[in-house]
Amino acid sequence: METPAYSIKHLRVIRINEGQALDFIDDIAVEEPLEIRVSYGMNEKKSISVTMRTPGNDAELAAGFLFTEGIIWQREHISAVSHSDSDCSRNAENEITVELAEDFTPQLMNAERNFYTTSSCGVCGKGSIQSIRTVSLFQHRERKALSADATWLCRLPQVLRSAQNNFSTTGGIHASGIFDLNGELLALREDVGRHNALDKLIGYALLEGWLPLDDKILLLSGRASFELIQKAAMAGITFVAAIGAPSSLAVDLAREFDMSLIGFLKESRFNIYHQGERHRIEF
Amino acid sequence: METPAYSIKHLRVIRINEGQALDFIDDIAVEEPLEIRVSYGMNEKKSISVTMRTPGNDAELAAGFLFTEGIIWQREHISAVSHSDSDCSRNAENEITVELAEDFTPQLMNAERNFYTTSSCGVCGKGSIQSIRTVSLFQHRERKALSADATWLCRLPQVLRSAQNNFSTTGGIHASGIFDLNGELLALREDVGRHNALDKLIGYALLEGWLPLDDKILLLSGRASFELIQKAAMAGITFVAAIGAPSSLAVDLAREFDMSLIGFLKESRFNIYHQGERHRIEF
Repeated sequence: METPAYSIKHLRVIRINEGQALDFIDDIAVEEPLEIRVSYGMNEKKSISVTMRTPGNDAELAAGFLFTEGIIWQREHISAVSHSDSDCSRNAENEITVELAEDFTPQLMNAERNFYTTSSCGVCGKGSIQSIRTVSLFQHRERKALSADATWLCRLPQVLRSAQNNFSTTGGIHASGIFDLNGELLALREDVGRHNALDKLIGYALLEGWLPLDDKILLLSGRASFELIQKAAMAGITFVAAIGAPSSLAVDLAREFDMSLIGFLKESRFNIYHQGERHRIEF
Repeated sequence: METPAYSIKHLRVIRINEGQALDFIDDIAVEEPLEIRVSYGMNEKKSISVTMRTPGNDAELAAGFLFTEGIIWQREHISAVSHSDSDCSRNAENEITVELAEDFTPQLMNAERNFYTTSSCGVCGKGSIQSIRTVSLFQHRERKALSADATWLCRLPQVLRSAQNNFSTTGGIHASGIFDLNGELLALREDVGRHNALDKLIGYALLEGWLPLDDKILLLSGRASFELIQKAAMAGITFVAAIGAPSSLAVDLAREFDMSLIGFLKESRFNIYHQGERHRIEF
């Protein structure tokens, strides 16, 4: 997994160390805006979102975002993804258009589910959880029995870090990785935004025809927020491990959906916030 | 600075440590949605944003968000802030309404500057930087000469951590702190979202009549993204230190606005990404 050169920038900085100043060239994570647009029907175009992201894997990011927001739900809904022609002098890669399949009508209302809903309690987690249940294709599938071993679970963060090119040099990049049940890393994506890293990963899985990821383990390099668990649920993921802390609403959602959720995954320990009914964690 | 009890939740979890399972009660950071509304004019109401935040200091969060988005620009624009009556069974505190002063017209278009602008290059950092320049009250003020000492700069993270109640127990909370030039912590706010922690802090400063914060140092507990530097610029902050890494666009913005930006601030070292023309860092 090679890091695109444009996702890191080299900057001259001054390091002050024990009272000494040193000029050096620092690797820094690139953050640039990406506008995601869809084109559909009789030449209709719509701007869906602007996200601050690290350039690289933009097509996957766009596909993943449309999928985790419930705007599309099959890879066949996409006919092409391309960077738009832009007259921007700074970065011509900051607009991407997802051309949707002929006769397909995107569910643009779903994109707004996080923001305004018509229920009496739209902004409550209850409302959001309900709408994922409605939107996600995979929530009603029968759950697979999964078995994970504590010893190799504890090794996953090291595997992720070894595979990560960006984090080690810039210290400013989040990662999401998909592992199989032998602890093998299948795919990894990185971004300054944790939600983008996950959208890139899910977009990749969608385009490769891997969904649902219901016999895989998702590893998050940082904390597990509601938004990340929500995206994981959309992709049919039922086992999530985070190196950082989960939030209260992330735990609520995991319990509600019977997803295994592990937090503070370290070399020799972790916390289990919820264990799926058909999941075993051996130690 | 006391932590509101409802910003932490106690959950029964299972900890696996060196192959042993232990039942224990974990402190976990609460994440709940907050819908921010404004009411103005002849009983007009508008929903401005829904953010996933840690409950506590909601009025400051709402005021700070409206201010850093350029929707209001003086504390006199606010006549009252109150949680709305809501029939939500889960959390009645998830809606807040900012009542604006009579005869004041909020600049609701400014709220959209990050999303859709009319310039030919709306999603480029250049467009965003330009709009901050237009919107921020404080960018054209004469810069104050500031002098900071490397020895006490290196102590600030420890001061922040000591003052933080949440982070130590939950491991999942970001903080923003304002320090004076003697290294004294004046105010600190925490949240699961780093942008919310900063909006709470700036909202507090706005309501206290402290703005612009052009003779203070802002300390961020994590990474410095474009969004955080943008909010800092809106509050007239010219000196930002982050315990984590800055992004490329954060550095661009700091250089463009001649804001001092320090990253990777640790006990005995830090990196200077930009030093303001009228700022001195002594070591």
